Amino acid sequence: MRIGVLGTGVVGRTLATKLVSLGHEVRMGSRQAGNEKAVEWTREAGAGASEGSFADAAELGELVINATAGAVAVDALRMAGADNLAGKVVIDVSNPLDFSRGMPPVLTVCNDDSVAERIQRELPDASVVKSLNTVNADVMVTPEVVPGDHTMFVAGNDADAKRQVTDLLESFGWPRERVLDLGDVTAARGMEMYLPLWLRLFGAAGTPRVNIHVVTG
Amino acid sequence: MRIGVLGTGVVGRTLATKLVSLGHEVRMGSRQAGNEKAVEWTREAGAGASEGSFADAAELGELVINATAGAVAVDALRMAGADNLAGKVVIDVSNPLDFSRGMPPVLTVCNDDSVAERIQRELPDASVVKSLNTVNADVMVTPEVVPGDHTMFVAGNDADAKRQVTDLLESFGWPRERVLDLGDVTAARGMEMYLPLWLRLFGAAGTPRVNIHVVTG
Repeated sequence: MRIGVLGTGVVGRTLATKLVSLGHEVRMGSRQAGNEKAVEWTREAGAGASEGSFADAAELGELVINATAGAVAVDALRMAGADNLAGKVVIDVSNPLDFSRGMPPVLTVCNDDSVAERIQRELPDASVVKSLNTVNADVMVTPEVVPGDHTMFVAGNDADAKRQVTDLLESFGWPRERVLDLGDVTAARGMEMYLPLWLRLFGAAGTPRVNIHVVTG
Repeated sequence: MRIGVLGTGVVGRTLATKLVSLGHEVRMGSRQAGNEKAVEWTREAGAGASEGSFADAAELGELVINATAGAVAVDALRMAGADNLAGKVVIDVSNPLDFSRGMPPVLTVCNDDSVAERIQRELPDASVVKSLNTVNADVMVTPEVVPGDHTMFVAGNDADAKRQVTDLLESFGWPRERVLDLGDVTAARGMEMYLPLWLRLFGAAGTPRVNIHVVTG
């Protein structure tokens, strides 16, 4: 399918590369068409890869992934354009981490709101699904680098959108039975507020290839 | 050993009962000696169980567990008395959940602070260890009700204190290799901010007997 990926950082490039390798037509979006990292990525990724503005990527994509930093995500989606995103699934993988005050980082939004909810409010005609933000970029697209069973979450208001995202996750290598639906988009609060714990797990494990497996009695 | 348990709720009573069953001398503390639930608990728990004020429990305990609600925990510890707690290990199992604004609940402290850090600042001569707050009361003292491997966290500034707490956790049934040290007391932020996710896991699983197993690549 045609997929727009907003953001040129490690997460955006990792996801975009995986999507191209799976045969999708992918446009990477950034603040201005011609972004150096995006152009470099199109050369590496080859056929099926293009780049442009946030709006260009949103317009092309039948599905759009927000891989911009959480603190600027709403701005990026606004630039992408509510009209370009109406009726589409928007996967929000961002985390609102602010390292500017040193370690441990703080979240720029949390507790009674989340980035995903802000995006959903900005784009009332899109179906926002929060997912993938709880693991490192390489684990997102290669879950088997963490051995054994471990869990991926989805949250959003639209059951059909969550099914589409689960299909995409399955194509990345996430077994369907390891994808846990946490409910409506307000569940994104918990998924984003998990990040301070994740950073400590990373520290304790000594590797960002760390995830959690949900176990039930 | 002699242990003070502050709080007469389900968590306090569950922990206190387990500790008595393990042969410890346990005093349950509340705002005022003679609290109805505490007195009832002493009758049920039998030999080794007593009750009194927060200060009475703190004075008796060689180790003290804070099982009051997170929103009132610092007040409770202040009433327990810094002098009574100097040089002692204080295990903070509280969560600052506020359900008064409906679902989902918000945290009364988070992001750049935590209940455990507030307690540590209130009690500079005590060694605060955050633990057990990430699971339901019955899982705290009977981890085997959740089958298979799953993780318990400890965080605090004093390595000796964390070793003592790990010994206690082992006596509850937590295998030593499943107890993960997340570092200093600021890691309590992540452990407390995990609660909104935990509440969603509870919802998705349909049971509070749910926990996470940390998996590393």
